[in-house]
Amino acid sequence: MAIITLTTDFGEKDPFAGAVKGAIYSELETVRIVDISHSVSPFHITEAAYIIQNAYKNFPNGTIHIIGIDSELTPENNHIAVKLDDHYFICANNGIVSLITRDIVPTEMVEINIHNRVTTNFTVLDVFVQAACHIARGGTLGVIGKPLSEIKSLTGIQPVVNKSQKQILGNVIYVDNYGNVVSNITRKLFEDIGKGREFKLEARGVEMSKIYNTYSEAINFTIDRSKREEDGKKLAVFNSGNYIELAIYKSNPSTVGSAAQLFGLDFRDTITINFQD
Amino acid sequence: MAIITLTTDFGEKDPFAGAVKGAIYSELETVRIVDISHSVSPFHITEAAYIIQNAYKNFPNGTIHIIGIDSELTPENNHIAVKLDDHYFICANNGIVSLITRDIVPTEMVEINIHNRVTTNFTVLDVFVQAACHIARGGTLGVIGKPLSEIKSLTGIQPVVNKSQKQILGNVIYVDNYGNVVSNITRKLFEDIGKGREFKLEARGVEMSKIYNTYSEAINFTIDRSKREEDGKKLAVFNSGNYIELAIYKSNPSTVGSAAQLFGLDFRDTITINFQD
Amino acid sequence: MAIITLTTDFGEKDPFAGAVKGAIYSELETVRIVDISHSVSPFHITEAAYIIQNAYKNFPNGTIHIIGIDSELTPENNHIAVKLDDHYFICANNGIVSLITRDIVPTEMVEINIHNRVTTNFTVLDVFVQAACHIARGGTLGVIGKPLSEIKSLTGIQPVVNKSQKQILGNVIYVDNYGNVVSNITRKLFEDIGKGREFKLEARGVEMSKIYNTYSEAINFTIDRSKREEDGKKLAVFNSGNYIELAIYKSNPSTVGSAAQLFGLDFRDTITINFQD
Repeated sequence: MAIITLTTDFGEKDPFAGAVKGAIYSELETVRIVDISHSVSPFHITEAAYIIQNAYKNFPNGTIHIIGIDSELTPENNHIAVKLDDHYFICANNGIVSLITRDIVPTEMVEINIHNRVTTNFTVLDVFVQAACHIARGGTLGVIGKPLSEIKSLTGIQPVVNKSQKQILGNVIYVDNYGNVVSNITRKLFEDIGKGREFKLEARGVEMSKIYNTYSEAINFTIDRSKREEDGKKLAVFNSGNYIELAIYKSNPSTVGSAAQLFGLDFRDTITINFQD
Repeated sequence: MAIITLTTDFGEKDPFAGAVKGAIYSELETVRIVDISHSVSPFHITEAAYIIQNAYKNFPNGTIHIIGIDSELTPENNHIAVKLDDHYFICANNGIVSLITRDIVPTEMVEINIHNRVTTNFTVLDVFVQAACHIARGGTLGVIGKPLSEIKSLTGIQPVVNKSQKQILGNVIYVDNYGNVVSNITRKLFEDIGKGREFKLEARGVEMSKIYNTYSEAINFTIDRSKREEDGKKLAVFNSGNYIELAIYKSNPSTVGSAAQLFGLDFRDTITINFQD
Repeated sequence: MAIITLTTDFGEKDPFAGAVKGAIYSELETVRIVDISHSVSPFHITEAAYIIQNAYKNFPNGTIHIIGIDSELTPENNHIAVKLDDHYFICANNGIVSLITRDIVPTEMVEINIHNRVTTNFTVLDVFVQAACHIARGGTLGVIGKPLSEIKSLTGIQPVVNKSQKQILGNVIYVDNYGNVVSNITRKLFEDIGKGREFKLEARGVEMSKIYNTYSEAINFTIDRSKREEDGKKLAVFNSGNYIELAIYKSNPSTVGSAAQLFGLDFRDTITINFQD
């Protein structure tokens, strides 16, 4: 049974997500619809890309992902369907696919051109729903669009390595539900450049010299609980997406405070790693 | 396979929505449950009606919609099941059905009277679940209630047209996830009264003389991006529900600000349209 | 068809809930996944227990409940699978099961030991997903873990009865979406100790001498609506979970105000019931 996922900035309250599900079930009786997130910040392509990137691989091959972010059809923003890593992505050609992955090349890309066959007034989503249901029924991309040789690419938020290979300059790309701060520096980049050297990680209010593999690795469980530093401990960790993350151990933004609050960090802020000679 | 949708003010955190889904699956193995929204403001019938109105038609005919808003059984608030527009609505008789549609007349209405057959302590929802599952199994309304000739009607928030047909006085009925402000003035009413005349739309901090068909229609894409007015542009648009909406182009309430904030408009505030002679 | 429910503190935005659903569907084609809540306050075991306690019984026997709260594997926090009340719970051994029920004894308990068979970097959830899918396929607990004779028990937030049986000292354990304040004093405890005696319930800014069975029982519907005390009325009620709850009739935290705000009560605050001689 086909799976269609939804990632949007519709929010949890508005009728849109429900409307889209209704439209899918009106087309297809046997399909699974899975919400990935409807709480992406409005028009925030970077956030949406981070969320999809860290969710999509867990779905079976062939899953169809509708991305409803900044998707109104304009002269500068057409609609695309892309096959990539054995998954299908249906979205606006606004660069979001280039943010989901740089390493994997799409095997098929079309500009969706079924708009004149769609007759409702919620065009954008109806187009995406029609395209998704077509694929779910086993249809080919060629029927719903014309082949593209390239799609829009965004290079805005990429970490920069200096010439001497001694410094990585990264940015905050996401703040999660725990208030932890995710950078765009991957474990791979860190290890490729660092080659095991000592380092200092610096960001506004914080300086660190170790990156843990799990949150609890930062805690010394051989010390008695009453004496050890634990809840509220500041740490850097390779998160489940393999990005360097600045975190507070068991952070609850409304009690011990979050990393974002305590470190004074927000989206796009700089995180620097300086390696020793 | 039957579809049961849920629209409630339970919120995203509390156990109630999960409890209702568990109760439905305990009754019926083969059913699809779809959340329309659980984030309706508490006891806010107008909001709930707007959300359902703009979601329900996308579902297949025969879909059963449970509305869990202000639904405690009292001497003044009984429970009803209504067939309308080939969809079923199960809710309290608090006027919400009259807000969902004025144009379509219910083809069947019953006052639910199975309360004494239901024995748990979460009565309201259990009654709605029992009624929904009965319909999902193909049962008739007559088995779960006694026929009604009329249900409660609310006329509170309707736009008013003055005698000379030169003015429409509307109200804000919904503020969406983007902070855009939805009025109760439909495209049909606007066109019927306006008959193509020039007009001024006024509301607290805003005055407009054009209503667009899509958000991006307000943007002049022939001007170079760096020079054109775009993000943050104020506009009026016929939204996907065919209501006049005051919007900010690509509004993000936490960055460029929302229409509600920038125009200083909230639920029930007045929106006036004056047509020229 | 097996049902797997999810209760976590992942929030509505992050990729984790979507990732978990994808992982389950990758393992099992025929399964129902139901979100109970992803909005538990971070690491808040008491809240999570209250939510699950009031949702799980509505699901069919055999339902598998994944609890993703404070579940990182540490020397002090192993993973368990428990069969209890004909339901399965998969969670960390952090005491949460003891908060879900004190009255029902688990019929099977194992410490999950499949961690070395799981190879991703989102270990915790992958382990829970593997365990849940194993049970969903009809597998036994013995295959995924080694039997435990006891699991961690938390006794922190339990009401206290004084020696003379004249006083119950309870605490706030949950504040719901309506801002109503739920205590840990059950109807059963209240009736067992009170034996029908008159009483005074006291908590910071409130004093009451009656506990209603439903919210609307507090309203006198024989008085004309314009004259009766209704919206905003303060009351105590046995809620749908059979706990004593301090509520505001038709409370909307953003208009009439919530019980939590008006009474100045928050998690862990004291609620006292003094019975007359």
